[in-house]
Amino acid sequence: MQLKKHLVTASYVDESMSKLDEAAKGAGITILGEMGLDPGIDHMMAMKMINQAHVRNGKIRSFTSYCGGLPSPAAANNPLAYKFSWNPAGAIRAGRNPSTYRYHGEIVHVDGNQLYDSASRLRIPDLPAFALECLPNRNSLIYGNLYGIENEASTIFRGTLRYEGFSEIMGTLSRIGFFNTEAISILKNDGDRLTFQKFLIKLLKLDHADNFNASSTLTEKGITERIIALGLCKEKETAAKTAKTIIFLGFHESIEIPVSCQSAFDITCLRMEERLAYSGTEEDMVLLHHEVEIDFPNGQPAENHRATLLEFGRTSSDGKTTTAMALTVGIPAAVGALLLLANKIQTRGVLRPIVPEVYIPGLDILEAYGFKLLEKME
Amino acid sequence: MQLKKHLVTASYVDESMSKLDEAAKGAGITILGEMGLDPGIDHMMAMKMINQAHVRNGKIRSFTSYCGGLPSPAAANNPLAYKFSWNPAGAIRAGRNPSTYRYHGEIVHVDGNQLYDSASRLRIPDLPAFALECLPNRNSLIYGNLYGIENEASTIFRGTLRYEGFSEIMGTLSRIGFFNTEAISILKNDGDRLTFQKFLIKLLKLDHADNFNASSTLTEKGITERIIALGLCKEKETAAKTAKTIIFLGFHESIEIPVSCQSAFDITCLRMEERLAYSGTEEDMVLLHHEVEIDFPNGQPAENHRATLLEFGRTSSDGKTTTAMALTVGIPAAVGALLLLANKIQTRGVLRPIVPEVYIPGLDILEAYGFKLLEKME
Repeated sequence: MQLKKHLVTASYVDESMSKLDEAAKGAGITILGEMGLDPGIDHMMAMKMINQAHVRNGKIRSFTSYCGGLPSPAAANNPLAYKFSWNPAGAIRAGRNPSTYRYHGEIVHVDGNQLYDSASRLRIPDLPAFALECLPNRNSLIYGNLYGIENEASTIFRGTLRYEGFSEIMGTLSRIGFFNTEAISILKNDGDRLTFQKFLIKLLKLDHADNFNASSTLTEKGITERIIALGLCKEKETAAKTAKTIIFLGFHESIEIPVSCQSAFDITCLRMEERLAYSGTEEDMVLLHHEVEIDFPNGQPAENHRATLLEFGRTSSDGKTTTAMALTVGIPAAVGALLLLANKIQTRGVLRPIVPEVYIPGLDILEAYGFKLLEKME
Repeated sequence: MQLKKHLVTASYVDESMSKLDEAAKGAGITILGEMGLDPGIDHMMAMKMINQAHVRNGKIRSFTSYCGGLPSPAAANNPLAYKFSWNPAGAIRAGRNPSTYRYHGEIVHVDGNQLYDSASRLRIPDLPAFALECLPNRNSLIYGNLYGIENEASTIFRGTLRYEGFSEIMGTLSRIGFFNTEAISILKNDGDRLTFQKFLIKLLKLDHADNFNASSTLTEKGITERIIALGLCKEKETAAKTAKTIIFLGFHESIEIPVSCQSAFDITCLRMEERLAYSGTEEDMVLLHHEVEIDFPNGQPAENHRATLLEFGRTSSDGKTTTAMALTVGIPAAVGALLLLANKIQTRGVLRPIVPEVYIPGLDILEAYGFKLLEKME
């Protein structure tokens, strides 16, 4: 503030940043936050659609938005159909976030421990080849406020995209105890280290079972049956997918667990980091999709508008891959800096890219850069 | 034959080619047929798995195989989730082929006009992100014979892969009459040319309907309702997807149908060729997947072996794209020529790549070339 320099960041405009508004105005500078992917491009694409509807006297009846950072379909080559490009701990913790949204006028709350069970199948009409599902993403209601549609939209929903099957498997792993954060006392034993296999045997409560034989029970079939016997999931297919994932992650292996792990959560994060990593040539993918239902006055027909961003990681000729996540978070921040340097953004204070001054030139530059932003109206 | 030159081709070894066996042997030459993708790589991957099982005294209980030339998921950006890289007529006609397969010991026949209705949802265990379905592919039984498993396999199934939704839409389009091959007399009218819109009105039997208004009826909603009213499909969602496809193909447009079209089939092929073509940077995809269930003697556990080929079109730095289909059909033929030139294939007469002499070095060279052949055993 003292140096009177503008600031662009992909981070959220939280309360402490909002409080800088007056001071920033006084200093004649712009603090442009939420200038990444989500938050960032999602704001820009949403506000373009919403403002276009409002200009035509339309009312937003429904706003639904889906965003996910995923492996490309070819790279989703494991039973969970997911990979981590960074430490899995944060992503796993996000699977316990409670969420709130508005659906046909009703407010729906989902408890954190119910989140995975609330996933639903999703197909994007213009991209039907992706076998997707979505999870409600934290508090959707604040977006009603932010986008100025809280008094007109009877549905306001923001979801996280995953490939089909992810949530039922993660939910079952959670019920088995793979994400428990309590310290496991036996892990502190320096002498007789716990192995992944013994850890799995404990989780499946097989350590006191009669006639237990690791080589025949710790198979896909045996684990599937045990998950069902323990009443941890309803569908046999889900139990089988979960068992496949447990085997894929190597929890049946007689390998000692490193001393760095203190809980089931730590152990699971470690195995996921090892086994669900991107290999050299595999690409990640970012998919962002908004749908808006618009009512118009005087009996004009309602319209459905959609906007979609689909980006894949890019591998250059020297074999280096820039992830789609890095591109879609980083490029908007760079575009924000460019717009400030070119004096295209003249509003001072704390801003988000929900104002036309930012999103109109911002989206143009993103498209010129090569981002594939698809827009459909029906 | 007179020139005593070997021959390699991706085409089927039909009866007339089989008859050349003795003559080829007499001339000391090899005629290597079915050396493409399907037939070709499918034979090689299947026979490697089957022979490995037989060497271990295993019996093939089940052989299932799926193959499809499809748009990459990102390029499947239309309601049909399909594109044509060549004239659609052949592919559409293939949708009427009757099929026969063996399933748990029973012989199943599917009539040509029932083919689309017999499609079933399919997920490849190692690639769960692809929303696939499969259609039985002609006569699977001959492969039991070819692969030497006709007396041991109770399931022998070969399927064609499409993305989910394709078959229900194509089946509904077929019932509406879009693929009828009878000449339409009105198309011969030189004066008053039929438009796509009038053609659609005729197909939907709206030409004598009361209170018919093209602008309100020939919408997604109106066409959906009409398809249901005509009893042409059971599910509303299928009718809606079909209506979306009809609009996407532009059958609601008041544009004159060219004189080259003589039937509904011709008109539909024309529109599909125009509207379901690959654009410059879009990639096609080839996906081939075999699954084999193997029983072993003396109470040894049964095994599940899988082999998968997933290839995408390749765009070179000068922007030219070689399709996955061209690569996977053309490269095996080149590999066959290479093996003959290097004298690795010494058998004479008419051959398919189902013999170890061809498929062992053949698969090695395909992998070295960069084809991603995945093999899994469980």
